[in-house]
Amino acid sequence: MTRVAIVGYGNIGRYALDALKAAPDMECAGVVRRCGSAEGIPGLSGIKVTSDISELGRVDVAILATPSRSVRENALKYLGMGISTVDSFDIHTGIAALRSELSPVARANGCVSIVSAGWDPGTDSIVRALLLAMAPEGTTYTNFGPGRSMGHSVVAASKDGVVKALSMTIPQGHGVHSREVYVELEPGADFAAVEEAVRTDPYFASDRTTVTAVPSVDTIDSHMHGVKLERSGISGCTGGQQMDFNMRINNPALTGQILVCAARAATRQQPGCYTTIEVPVIDFLPGDRDSIIPELV
Amino acid sequence: MTRVAIVGYGNIGRYALDALKAAPDMECAGVVRRCGSAEGIPGLSGIKVTSDISELGRVDVAILATPSRSVRENALKYLGMGISTVDSFDIHTGIAALRSELSPVARANGCVSIVSAGWDPGTDSIVRALLLAMAPEGTTYTNFGPGRSMGHSVVAASKDGVVKALSMTIPQGHGVHSREVYVELEPGADFAAVEEAVRTDPYFASDRTTVTAVPSVDTIDSHMHGVKLERSGISGCTGGQQMDFNMRINNPALTGQILVCAARAATRQQPGCYTTIEVPVIDFLPGDRDSIIPELV
Repeated sequence: MTRVAIVGYGNIGRYALDALKAAPDMECAGVVRRCGSAEGIPGLSGIKVTSDISELGRVDVAILATPSRSVRENALKYLGMGISTVDSFDIHTGIAALRSELSPVARANGCVSIVSAGWDPGTDSIVRALLLAMAPEGTTYTNFGPGRSMGHSVVAASKDGVVKALSMTIPQGHGVHSREVYVELEPGADFAAVEEAVRTDPYFASDRTTVTAVPSVDTIDSHMHGVKLERSGISGCTGGQQMDFNMRINNPALTGQILVCAARAATRQQPGCYTTIEVPVIDFLPGDRDSIIPELV
Repeated sequence: MTRVAIVGYGNIGRYALDALKAAPDMECAGVVRRCGSAEGIPGLSGIKVTSDISELGRVDVAILATPSRSVRENALKYLGMGISTVDSFDIHTGIAALRSELSPVARANGCVSIVSAGWDPGTDSIVRALLLAMAPEGTTYTNFGPGRSMGHSVVAASKDGVVKALSMTIPQGHGVHSREVYVELEPGADFAAVEEAVRTDPYFASDRTTVTAVPSVDTIDSHMHGVKLERSGISGCTGGQQMDFNMRINNPALTGQILVCAARAATRQQPGCYTTIEVPVIDFLPGDRDSIIPELV
């Protein structure tokens, strides 16, 4: 059994625990929370909770279910301890640098890091790479939503004066999106300052963003999200090749599941840091190759 | 430059040559045909044609653009000469055995074989594996067509009394298909015997198959095909996850393109035999990882 710790217990951590419990070949070594306590969280009964991963016995892989902006620090820490890591780091422009920085650390400590292993970046990246291989000339459009972006919601919620936030991604077609951000404000917070801070954050700066103050974010929240990846292109010299990939999914449930599959894959790679497109897809699945191939290929 | 030979020059061979010419990192070492001649085939001008691959100088990879039933023999021959091979072997029930037989031969000769590298089996296999990872409990349906199945057409054409054949795959939903086989008969051929031979062939035996004699297959032929892969399943313990992958494509053009991508990937694997789901998707693409990742992930 591969022993997996979950670091952080927000939305993604909860769903990663569900996926870990359902995996036939893995067990949860425990959950690492800054507070070190499971108090008041019923989903954690029977699970060891600590602020120090070294109290969990042998840990093969740590799932970093933390905001993207603290992935780097956590990954360096756990890789340094010889524990493999997986994360769903979702800042597309920072992935290559993260991989370059973690790779020598992972190698030096004989362990593996799989970065950006959510659904986008993550499984969508695999589909994009596949579509590009199938039709090397052409255009791929990634259309998200409508749905709640976890990464954008966390960033909006981090702004001064904001209690809770929900960022909805609205597809406008051909890879263009707008963002509808709903914020619950602290008493006396300056709405104009919040609006400015959200709209100028790099997460939002390139999309049309509307910020609205609401009395309660929870009543309009949803975990449903979706994507449509489309490519039209040329195979060899034959044009008109049409492909598309669509999902309508519970967002943190899918992210948690992919992180657990990536934790499995981490035990099967040579030391180093990888993005999902560098990992053979079969390594995400339980069981051995000789049993999977006749069923699936 | 990776030097690639194309073995066989039917539909797939022609389109593989197109894809090879379009590839920035590969060149065509030549085409191997039993007759050893390019006579009467305009597409081969400027390409060396031979019946003996050893006349083509260095060959890194041989693309086996032959019927599935002669893949095994050709793969064993070229791997034995230390030349890596890729093929689009499409008999799903025979893939695992083919891989097991070729793997030690490839390893012993320090080369690589990637088997069943068309679109199904092939790229569809990658999508199926990915969907299974994303929602481990659930059902995947593979719906083909409507379109011409190259493998089934070749088998129908191989029956005694048949000059040419076209097998159309018609999706009936939920992974069920019927097959409409059109045959051009030799003068005096026994239609009932042809019908029986087609319908009882393992390629057709499990599908509802209609055989029709026509004066000319060419007038009703088309290279367009398609597929819809659908999965509805559970991530962790959250149900209702919906995913689908669709294509409408020129069939031999896509197969030829994927074979060329697989030839590239063959130069990047450790010696042995692989199915597509065992190959990191990034290895199908030209260029180095550090340039691909920032663009695609």
